[in-house]
Amino acid sequence: MKFNSTLDSIKSYEAGKPIELVVREYGINKEDIVKLASNENPFGCSPKVKEAVRSIIDNMALYPDDSMVKLKTALSNKYGIKSNELIIGAGSDQVIEFAIHAKAHEGSCVLMNSVTFAMYEIYAKQVGAQIIRTASREHKMEEFYTLYLEHKPSIIFLCTPNNPTGDGLLAEEMLAFIDKIDNDTLVIIDGAYMEYARFKDTAYAVEPRDLVAKYENVLFLGTFSKAYGLGGMRVGYGIASAPIIEALYKVRPPFNITTLSLEAASVALEDEAFVQECIADNFKEMARYEEFASVKGIDVIESYTNFVTLSLPEEKNSSKIAQELLKKGMIVRDLSSYGLNAIRVTIGTSAQNDRFFQLTEPLL
Amino acid sequence: MKFNSTLDSIKSYEAGKPIELVVREYGINKEDIVKLASNENPFGCSPKVKEAVRSIIDNMALYPDDSMVKLKTALSNKYGIKSNELIIGAGSDQVIEFAIHAKAHEGSCVLMNSVTFAMYEIYAKQVGAQIIRTASREHKMEEFYTLYLEHKPSIIFLCTPNNPTGDGLLAEEMLAFIDKIDNDTLVIIDGAYMEYARFKDTAYAVEPRDLVAKYENVLFLGTFSKAYGLGGMRVGYGIASAPIIEALYKVRPPFNITTLSLEAASVALEDEAFVQECIADNFKEMARYEEFASVKGIDVIESYTNFVTLSLPEEKNSSKIAQELLKKGMIVRDLSSYGLNAIRVTIGTSAQNDRFFQLTEPLL
Repeated sequence: MKFNSTLDSIKSYEAGKPIELVVREYGINKEDIVKLASNENPFGCSPKVKEAVRSIIDNMALYPDDSMVKLKTALSNKYGIKSNELIIGAGSDQVIEFAIHAKAHEGSCVLMNSVTFAMYEIYAKQVGAQIIRTASREHKMEEFYTLYLEHKPSIIFLCTPNNPTGDGLLAEEMLAFIDKIDNDTLVIIDGAYMEYARFKDTAYAVEPRDLVAKYENVLFLGTFSKAYGLGGMRVGYGIASAPIIEALYKVRPPFNITTLSLEAASVALEDEAFVQECIADNFKEMARYEEFASVKGIDVIESYTNFVTLSLPEEKNSSKIAQELLKKGMIVRDLSSYGLNAIRVTIGTSAQNDRFFQLTEPLL
Repeated sequence: MKFNSTLDSIKSYEAGKPIELVVREYGINKEDIVKLASNENPFGCSPKVKEAVRSIIDNMALYPDDSMVKLKTALSNKYGIKSNELIIGAGSDQVIEFAIHAKAHEGSCVLMNSVTFAMYEIYAKQVGAQIIRTASREHKMEEFYTLYLEHKPSIIFLCTPNNPTGDGLLAEEMLAFIDKIDNDTLVIIDGAYMEYARFKDTAYAVEPRDLVAKYENVLFLGTFSKAYGLGGMRVGYGIASAPIIEALYKVRPPFNITTLSLEAASVALEDEAFVQECIADNFKEMARYEEFASVKGIDVIESYTNFVTLSLPEEKNSSKIAQELLKKGMIVRDLSSYGLNAIRVTIGTSAQNDRFFQLTEPLL
């Protein structure tokens, strides 16, 4: 059977190895495995969220409230935006998919950073769009602007802080760039890690309500998978002007968020104190990684997220090191598929980080 | 901002009204509302599923096992198929979306029954495909065949038992039709209610393993949303030959099923006895609807599902009756948007059905 030719060039996303897989492949006891590969919050979610989800277990049979009123109200209040400026996705991933399906098509261009979140390319290829990438590892606005003028892309992705490198883009620089972009180009700011950037240095943070107030063509993405500790529940969101949201709704499948996930995300927003404590701990522990790297003479990219990217010296091979660590039950992300000789490590609990240092010490 | 022109003709799916909405709109107490609108299992899911989900609440922070090994193994064993003949979707809905995105495109045709599940058309329009429909309310294979010869569709949808009418298609008739279809046309058998048909009369049931063994071009869809009582958890699946599954995987987003949903569906398969008891009760209660309709002189379409479709006489208006019932806290589905003067009612518990008869009695 023949399928659409746009599928020919698609490679599937390489996910962080789940703990179950390492148990199966390497025969390591589940309790001896430490996963620092998917930038999950090592403290999980607020205890209030767990309690709330437990209390509605009987509702698993009922289709979700597809108007998502509870979650949309909570998010609108958090951000000071209107409900029609908001769409919920099964992870911010799904909002990326909506945007690409609504705006890009065969023959259109999608512009993104040299090294950035892999799903932009995968979804763009699904609709047959052409991928244009900048040259530098960091987001350089002048490179973006040159390529914008040359290719007139339908969508520009700005991932800040960037995944998988962790570096941030100054809000001022980014906004000065967006000011120069025509209104028919959709600029997507992927802020999956924005809570961390906002905590570390507000100069690297943008406020969605300011974006919506000022720009007709900007879509901001946020997620519950990282700081809010709900990676397993698949809830993210997009914030933009009402006409953009209306278009994205047309490609949204009904019931795209589970009944339990809607409740979990709604209640997570009621315990911001928990999230802020987790973020504070994250940066305290991150300092230990920076110290470790410094002692070892390894470059660490300055991170505005809950992970660090260690750029290895030439004589060390990131794939081999990730593999060695995996055999010992330590799951990190090898970035060789992104063209980097680097490993990405999620900041874990203090004990998990101890274990990382202990296992990595002899390898570096 | 301009969006893809394929979006222009898309109307959003009209979901069954959730209980929360009726509480908000009509100010009725939540406990006084009976929802018989979305074909959920009124007994919910197996108690074993609830226990299992409760026990892994701490895992909400962890991304799902994207290889879905536990659920795929359980489903493969249930159906006697190989793991590479299976794909899991966020509801069978999402597998429909995958199939359309992988196979249909602007200019191609998608053939479906006159009255059938609304999402086939919505997804097909998203990719700009043309919709071709038969004339009769029931699936008539000779009508499908004539239109197949005329339009050479890329996809044919057969929904059996059909939603929203509940009638079934004899397996023998369906297979004789598929035998005549060329291998480059994808035939999708939507078996969301197949568990009910299999219980009532095996002549109306197909076995996915037989389909995979015989046909290269057939995709069978199943779901946990109906008989398995997990409508809120968004888990469905597609079963087909390995090359079809491989193509669908290319348009599958990673982590499309939540961590809790994977566990819920896996454990649901361990308690088939619960599901069979629910189905037995369903048909016992359905007889009461048939009796009620007969006394009232109303046509009821013979149903192989967990719902009945009551075709109203000309002097009664289905929209008005559904609206009257809604004001009293009884949610059913008006089928006027499908061009039918009919209401679709999910078979509830005995008490819920009593309430339906009591409230409907003065209206019909």
